[in-house]
Amino acid sequence: MTNSEGRTELEELGEFGLIQHLSKHVEIKNKSTALGIGDDAALIDAGKGQVVLTTDMLVEGVHFDLTYTPLKHLGYKSVVVNISDVCAMNATPSQITVSIALSNRFSLEAIDELYSGIMLACKNYKVDLVGGDTTSSLSGLIISVSAVGFADKKDMVLRSTAKENDLLCVTGDLGGAYMGLQLLEREKSVFEVNENMQPNLEGNDYILERQLKPEARTDIIKLFEELKVKPTSMIDISDGLSSEALHLCHSSEVGCNIYEEKIPLDHQTIEMAQEFKIDPSICALSGGEDYELLFTISQNDHDKIKGDPNISIIGHITAKGEGCQLVAKGGAVHELTAQGWDSLLKKDK
Amino acid sequence: MTNSEGRTELEELGEFGLIQHLSKHVEIKNKSTALGIGDDAALIDAGKGQVVLTTDMLVEGVHFDLTYTPLKHLGYKSVVVNISDVCAMNATPSQITVSIALSNRFSLEAIDELYSGIMLACKNYKVDLVGGDTTSSLSGLIISVSAVGFADKKDMVLRSTAKENDLLCVTGDLGGAYMGLQLLEREKSVFEVNENMQPNLEGNDYILERQLKPEARTDIIKLFEELKVKPTSMIDISDGLSSEALHLCHSSEVGCNIYEEKIPLDHQTIEMAQEFKIDPSICALSGGEDYELLFTISQNDHDKIKGDPNISIIGHITAKGEGCQLVAKGGAVHELTAQGWDSLLKKDK
Repeated sequence: MTNSEGRTELEELGEFGLIQHLSKHVEIKNKSTALGIGDDAALIDAGKGQVVLTTDMLVEGVHFDLTYTPLKHLGYKSVVVNISDVCAMNATPSQITVSIALSNRFSLEAIDELYSGIMLACKNYKVDLVGGDTTSSLSGLIISVSAVGFADKKDMVLRSTAKENDLLCVTGDLGGAYMGLQLLEREKSVFEVNENMQPNLEGNDYILERQLKPEARTDIIKLFEELKVKPTSMIDISDGLSSEALHLCHSSEVGCNIYEEKIPLDHQTIEMAQEFKIDPSICALSGGEDYELLFTISQNDHDKIKGDPNISIIGHITAKGEGCQLVAKGGAVHELTAQGWDSLLKKDK
Repeated sequence: MTNSEGRTELEELGEFGLIQHLSKHVEIKNKSTALGIGDDAALIDAGKGQVVLTTDMLVEGVHFDLTYTPLKHLGYKSVVVNISDVCAMNATPSQITVSIALSNRFSLEAIDELYSGIMLACKNYKVDLVGGDTTSSLSGLIISVSAVGFADKKDMVLRSTAKENDLLCVTGDLGGAYMGLQLLEREKSVFEVNENMQPNLEGNDYILERQLKPEARTDIIKLFEELKVKPTSMIDISDGLSSEALHLCHSSEVGCNIYEEKIPLDHQTIEMAQEFKIDPSICALSGGEDYELLFTISQNDHDKIKGDPNISIIGHITAKGEGCQLVAKGGAVHELTAQGWDSLLKKDK
C-alpha cells in the first residue's frame, strides 16, 4: 500500500483498517483494565462493579451539516451516540464529558442551543455532565463526548461471545435515519437552486427524527433485566446492519444467516426508499446511524423475548466456516458485505 | 454583553466565562458522581476507590503549530496534559482514550508518528490506551484525549480545600515552556523570511523540551505518599501561575501572598527572557503550559517537604478579604491578575 514516495494514503486503509493498524501496538499494563480497544467501550475494574468508558467525535462537514441540523438536535445526538455505546455493553450510562472546538462564527446563543440539547439528553438519560474542554477552532465545530457507565461484572455483554445456534436479534426498525438524511440532502439541494422553495418535509416526521434526534436503547437494557435475559453478545448499530453483523461475527469467530424478510422496517422508510428508487433493505443493511442494538441470545431464551414488540429475530449464528450470509426474499443467498453507503447505492441507480 | 442583534460574542466571555456560563445549568443526578465540573477532573465513586475522569482537546493552529512541532512530541504532549490533570487530584492515571480528526493532508506515516508519541507516553506513565475514535476533518488535526485514574477516597485532593495559613508550593520550575514557544516562533519567522536560514536552537534544549515534550508530575504523587504529606489543595499549572493561583484561591474562598523572589526559574528561561526583553517572572506568572503542580500544605507538614529539590514554597494562604497578592522583589505589592500572555507582555515592550 506504500507508494514510491514511501507514503501510504489513509483512504486505502479506511477507518477500521486505520483503527486496526493503530491498535496493533497497544499493550494492557494495568490490572484494572478489564477490556481495552476492540469493543464498543472499555471496561475498567472498580472493585465489585465495572466502569465502562467510551468516546466519539463529531466533525462539522463530516458528521453533520448545519444547514439542516438544528444545534439543539446536534447536541442531543452527540450525547446519544455515546450512550448507545454504553448500552451495547449492557451497562447503565452515568457520566459524560463534552469537549467542543468552535470558530468565532458561533455566537453564545448558538452554543446555548447546542448545550440545551446536550442537557436535555443528560436529563432524559439520567447522565451527569462531569467535565470537558472548550477551545477555539479555525474552521467549523467539533464535538468530542466521552461517556462512563457501570454494570456488575456478571452482567457485561461483549461483542465477542456469540455462539453457534444463537438467535440474532435487533431492536426497533432500521434504515430510517439513512432515509431521513437522503430527504434532508434532497431538500437542501432544491433550496440551493431556488432560495424561494420551501423544504417539503411534511409527513416524514419519523425518519427525520431518526436522523436528527436519535435515541439510545437504554429501555432495552432495563427490558433485559425484567425478562431475565442476558444476551450472549451485543453491538450497537451505528454503521448499518451489515457492518455491525460482520463486526460481531468476526469478534466472536462465528458466521451468521440474516433473513432479509425479517429485517424490521418502518412504513415511512419503505415509502421514502421507493420514492428514491432505493431497495429499503439496502438502507437497513448499509445505511447506519440507527443506534438500535444488534444482539444474540441463546435459543433457550427464545420464549422470553418472543412477541416483544421491541425485538425482531432476524437470523441465527452459524459456524465460522459458513460465513456471514444474507438470505434474500427470493431465497437467493448473498455474502454479507460492509461496503459504504455510496458504493452500494450506486449499484441500484 | 448582548448587542442590538441579540447576539453575544464569545470573545467577550473568554474561555472561563464560557465554561462558567455552560456549567450553570448542570445538575448532578447520580449518587456515583462524587465531583463534577469545576476541578481538574471528575470523580466517580466506584466502591472503595474513586475513578478520576478528565478530558482535553488540542486543535491545530490553536494549540500547536506543525511547522515546528514534531508529531511524535505532539502525541506525547496530548497524553501528558491529561495525565497532569489526573495528578492534580493526587490520583494515579490508569487509562486513556484518544480521538483524532484529521484531513487527508496526513499520511499513515504521519499518524504513526503521532501515535508513537502517544504510545511512548502510555509506556512512560504506565497508562492503557483503551479506546477512541478516528474520523476525518475538513482542515487540520484535532486530538481529544480523555484520561481515567484511581485513588482511595481519603487521598483525593481538590482545588477547593486550601485553608488560611497553609503554605503555597510549586513543583519544578516555571516559565520554561513559554520561553521555548517564543524561541520556536522567532526561528519560524526567520525561516519564513529566508528559507536558507537554519533555525538557531542550540543550547536551549531544556526550554524547547518544556514546550515540545512536557512531563506530568506523577513522581510528585509518589513523593507525597513517601513523605506522608497530603496537600490541602492542588491544581496543575497549564495556564500560568497567576491564573492557577487565582483558580485555587477562588475555589477555596481564600486569598494568597506569592513572593516573586521565591518563584523557581531555570537559568535557560532567565537567559532567553532577557534576550527577548521579557521579565522572567512574567513568563512564570502568565506563560502557561508548564504542567507543574501548584498545591498547599498545612504548616505542620513544613518539615516534611523542606529542602526537597522538587518543591519550592512560594507563599502562603491568607483570608479571603486580603485578596491574591504578588509581593515583588522590591517589596511592592501587586494584585494578582490572570491576563492573557499578550496583554501582559505588551506592557513590557
